[in-house]
Amino acid sequence: MAMRVGVILSGCGFKDGSEIQEAVGILIALDRRGASVVCMAPDVPQSETLNHFTSQKEAHPRNVLHESARIARGKIVDLAGVKSADLDALIFPGGYGAAKNLCDFAAKGDQCHVLDDVKRLLMEMRGAGKPIGLACIAPVMAAAVFGAAGLSPQLTIGTDAQTAGAINAMGGVHHATGPADIYIDENNRLVTTPCYMNDVGPWVVYQGADKMVEAVLKMAGGGSR
Amino acid sequence: MAMRVGVILSGCGFKDGSEIQEAVGILIALDRRGASVVCMAPDVPQSETLNHFTSQKEAHPRNVLHESARIARGKIVDLAGVKSADLDALIFPGGYGAAKNLCDFAAKGDQCHVLDDVKRLLMEMRGAGKPIGLACIAPVMAAAVFGAAGLSPQLTIGTDAQTAGAINAMGGVHHATGPADIYIDENNRLVTTPCYMNDVGPWVVYQGADKMVEAVLKMAGGGSR
Repeated sequence: MAMRVGVILSGCGFKDGSEIQEAVGILIALDRRGASVVCMAPDVPQSETLNHFTSQKEAHPRNVLHESARIARGKIVDLAGVKSADLDALIFPGGYGAAKNLCDFAAKGDQCHVLDDVKRLLMEMRGAGKPIGLACIAPVMAAAVFGAAGLSPQLTIGTDAQTAGAINAMGGVHHATGPADIYIDENNRLVTTPCYMNDVGPWVVYQGADKMVEAVLKMAGGGSR
Repeated sequence: MAMRVGVILSGCGFKDGSEIQEAVGILIALDRRGASVVCMAPDVPQSETLNHFTSQKEAHPRNVLHESARIARGKIVDLAGVKSADLDALIFPGGYGAAKNLCDFAAKGDQCHVLDDVKRLLMEMRGAGKPIGLACIAPVMAAAVFGAAGLSPQLTIGTDAQTAGAINAMGGVHHATGPADIYIDENNRLVTTPCYMNDVGPWVVYQGADKMVEAVLKMAGGGSR
């Protein structure tokens, strides 16, 4: 029986959506291990659209679900309809979309609000004892939701002092790690890895994503192959 | 000395631009082998914009260079300014963008026209004896340009009969291959692989892209590691 793994996307492009290379690295690592992947995203407007060549804001709005579908080759569902019972594990790539569309950490820091459906699914997964993997900036959502619940989530986003400080301020406990390393919180069943929180390249990012996926699947009971 | 490899993107999303998973697989494989990557795209409007969730056309125009920048994390240059002297090898991911934005094969088949700058760079690379890798549907551009020049390019797009027929009609010679295989034309220094011309997943696509990159770098004199 293949492990059913949800991947929550937040758009398509690191400045206003999911970090594409992280998302694809996660999809490759999951497919390599025979997982059955359910890509999902919220059906909401992006908080903004940024031209990735000029870095300028664009006026024309884009939708998080519709743009995320580009990474998923159209095989994607509305996050609102997904329950923890549908999944054995849940994974979040990073990119500013995680901090702008799934929560507002990019604007509000440790005072951030996490999208209701994201918060709901995180709490459901935690309640069911199912593992959650988070890459890059995405761990701030686990810090916000599980920190507020008094669960002291143990997380890494690498070594960035400001983000680490915000994680601690939200009730999490940050652990510094190297660029392709992972940190495992056995108690809360969380696996985190820095990816593009560091100035690295696609190969380092893929290695971190692959290790994270391996640990998440192992925790979900799927082992590795 | 790192191999300098150009990657020509055609937008961001397989329905109207580059196939994202193929493009990222190529970037991972290149970075893994220490290549110095130059992402590039033409600064032209996309031929169309397709919503990847609904598959409907969208009225608002997008620019090929600006959308491609999403995959390249902003590190991308206008194709018009790139010469073969800047590169040791050149690689094209697939996606409909290759057949809609870099040429018009999707609409015109074997009567297609290839974008002038793409044609120029292909002929320059061929003239300099530098290798070219093409994934998925992208080999049709090599068929059109090198076929018209009487060079009988030997190519694969997998097993799709209609596309193979068009390649042959343009003066190329199609060779059927398996999903993660590559075909090497030593004479024209071309390496091709089917990727998402087949109904496969991210891991098969990555394996094909990795083999193609390995062969291209070996042909460029970089060996593998």
